[in-house]
Amino acid sequence: MAPAYKVTYFPITALGEPIRFLLSYGGFEFEDCRIGPENWPQLKPSMPFGQLPTLEHNGKIVNQSIAICKYLAKQVKLVGNDDWEDLEIDAIALTINDLRLSIGKYHYESDEQVKERIKGTLFSETLPYYLERLDKIAKDNNGYLAAGRLTWADLYFIALLDYMNQMAKTDIIVDHPNLLAVKNNVLSLPAIKTWIEKRPESTY
Amino acid sequence: MAPAYKVTYFPITALGEPIRFLLSYGGFEFEDCRIGPENWPQLKPSMPFGQLPTLEHNGKIVNQSIAICKYLAKQVKLVGNDDWEDLEIDAIALTINDLRLSIGKYHYESDEQVKERIKGTLFSETLPYYLERLDKIAKDNNGYLAAGRLTWADLYFIALLDYMNQMAKTDIIVDHPNLLAVKNNVLSLPAIKTWIEKRPESTY
Repeated sequence: MAPAYKVTYFPITALGEPIRFLLSYGGFEFEDCRIGPENWPQLKPSMPFGQLPTLEHNGKIVNQSIAICKYLAKQVKLVGNDDWEDLEIDAIALTINDLRLSIGKYHYESDEQVKERIKGTLFSETLPYYLERLDKIAKDNNGYLAAGRLTWADLYFIALLDYMNQMAKTDIIVDHPNLLAVKNNVLSLPAIKTWIEKRPESTY
Repeated sequence: MAPAYKVTYFPITALGEPIRFLLSYGGFEFEDCRIGPENWPQLKPSMPFGQLPTLEHNGKIVNQSIAICKYLAKQVKLVGNDDWEDLEIDAIALTINDLRLSIGKYHYESDEQVKERIKGTLFSETLPYYLERLDKIAKDNNGYLAAGRLTWADLYFIALLDYMNQMAKTDIIVDHPNLLAVKNNVLSLPAIKTWIEKRPESTY
């Protein structure tokens, strides 16, 4: 029987990896479909809003990685105990997405002059600002990003970290002990360890 | 007694308005705190991640408008009937947020040459691409954006529309009858009508 879930993304971690982490954490079998650049142009028109990653389940397909993560987080019980806790967890995940977008704005800028200007702001203002606050939150939550325990926000952050580091060309959390604790807490989960050992190699 | 909810934002609709729409829809009293540019610098350091809008409730404060909308949507019962429906609603809201970001990228660009280049892509590719697909979705859902009935995605879209139109300098949905139906469905809700009549005037 085919697995109940199919994840379609490019052959990298990036926005697909939080979805793969959550499915692995839940022990769900899934088809890990990886689209090379040579096949993407012909597939793109059939994807909702022309984007990856997508999740397929019961003959339905959806895009938007954060929405998919939130759905899977409910299935694997990594959400809040009440609506307000859910709000705090969602807010942290969206904040990490903002951070990812800021680093991406630098990484994907093709005009070298503009890129240098963005680089200055990113490394002297944006990154320290976000990382200090996130580190403080991780301290207050005992090595997690919300609710004082493991939630999907932790898996979301750590699954995206290789991509953010690759774009920033540096380990962004190396000087933030509480964010390193979050990383350690996620990467020591047996299901995540097993997934990382068996996942296909990629540069990031 | 002070209202249970306090919304803090700038004196415009934009990212604050979906929150105000949802609170109004639910008939919740709320403090509608509007920060002028002269007061923002002294308030910014005390806001989570230096951002508005924020929601305060029971002595706690959170940022991230989409997370706040999702929380309020649960309180006012504008969410899905099951986890997959929730996923579809969330994905549409996040897609509308992507659209808003694309228009904002054009609007907020200060380099005139870069702005012209972005304008070309926005009006000839991005906007038609998104709006055609959203219009088709609204058609398939009988004048709503998901689940075949009113959900928070509809309020989110219509509350943001003035801001998107103002940034694009045009009515982006004027040629999309099914999106006009979504607009009409939201703006005819008695609680939304009342809110729009009583809300403070702003340019957008």
